[in-house]
Amino acid sequence: MKLLEDMILQKGKIINEDVLKVDNFINHQVDSKLMKEIGVEFSNYFKKDKITKIFTIESSGIAPAVMTSYELNVPMVILKKQTSAILNDDIYQVNYKSFTKNTTYNLTISKDYISQDDSILIIDDFLANGEAAKASIKLIENVGAKVVGIGIVIEKTFQPGRKILDELGYNVYSLARIKSLKNNKIEFIN
Amino acid sequence: MKLLEDMILQKGKIINEDVLKVDNFINHQVDSKLMKEIGVEFSNYFKKDKITKIFTIESSGIAPAVMTSYELNVPMVILKKQTSAILNDDIYQVNYKSFTKNTTYNLTISKDYISQDDSILIIDDFLANGEAAKASIKLIENVGAKVVGIGIVIEKTFQPGRKILDELGYNVYSLARIKSLKNNKIEFIN
Repeated sequence: MKLLEDMILQKGKIINEDVLKVDNFINHQVDSKLMKEIGVEFSNYFKKDKITKIFTIESSGIAPAVMTSYELNVPMVILKKQTSAILNDDIYQVNYKSFTKNTTYNLTISKDYISQDDSILIIDDFLANGEAAKASIKLIENVGAKVVGIGIVIEKTFQPGRKILDELGYNVYSLARIKSLKNNKIEFIN
Repeated sequence: MKLLEDMILQKGKIINEDVLKVDNFINHQVDSKLMKEIGVEFSNYFKKDKITKIFTIESSGIAPAVMTSYELNVPMVILKKQTSAILNDDIYQVNYKSFTKNTTYNLTISKDYISQDDSILIIDDFLANGEAAKASIKLIENVGAKVVGIGIVIEKTFQPGRKILDELGYNVYSLARIKSLKNNKIEFIN
């Protein structure tokens, strides 16, 4: 997505070879016009897939996910990141480790908002190691629902997440694919 | 806002005299068409106020805030809820206690995303005790920026938040104002 790549080049900050900071237009301060365009783009790509729900993980996936949800005219569900496990018959939980934050989260959803008939599009801001995406997939498939696709705003292709999801056979659509952050330079795959 | 009140009556669940659960269309599962209408409504009400930024607190304020940000054509900033204080010259923090969650948070913003020239609209999903709103105001005013208004999706008028903000002289606009949840019945102020 040209608009997104241009903004990454203009506004992204390379912290080191592994970390790109985009908190002036995606993560902390948010450009809602860009989020709208992202929603339109994901909608155009996934609209043939008969999606029933959009899932995202709190909190930086919410802005692109709500715009996609609006365009596709289906509900969005925010998966909650609990730091402790909850014993409760009303919810499903899957735990995962975020390498970025070095924290273990319990990804949590109320049983009311997923059923085995759901065809779900997962939206997230970043794909790096793929731990959050894998946990979301597990949460969805444990119920017998289907993951029809994964929409990512920024993918770091030099980290393992994309390869893992490709090998598992998921349809991953990333709007910007970063090949390298080496030598203080952002390189995209086209 | 008639549409919102109707949805609250149809889909809201009274947990007890103090707690209304709206997690099937606002907090957990999110109705993005409703969020769009909320954005349009806040935009119409506040557009005369020369707003430069929308602030919200992660994570259930993000969906209505990004829609409002889109309509008003200004950036949104997501205030982060840290559970620990961070010693860092790049950020501002204000701590507050959430009565609902019985937790103390450090509301956090990067210094890059606020300046004394900003005129800020705060958007949040709920107004109850007003602790989060007061902390947001303090964070903004400590920098010398201006709070031009506070947009709330659902206000519980029987809890102290609204009165406190009124007495401090802020322009609070709530789309649904709940007077009582007693006797298993939702009553609005009109």
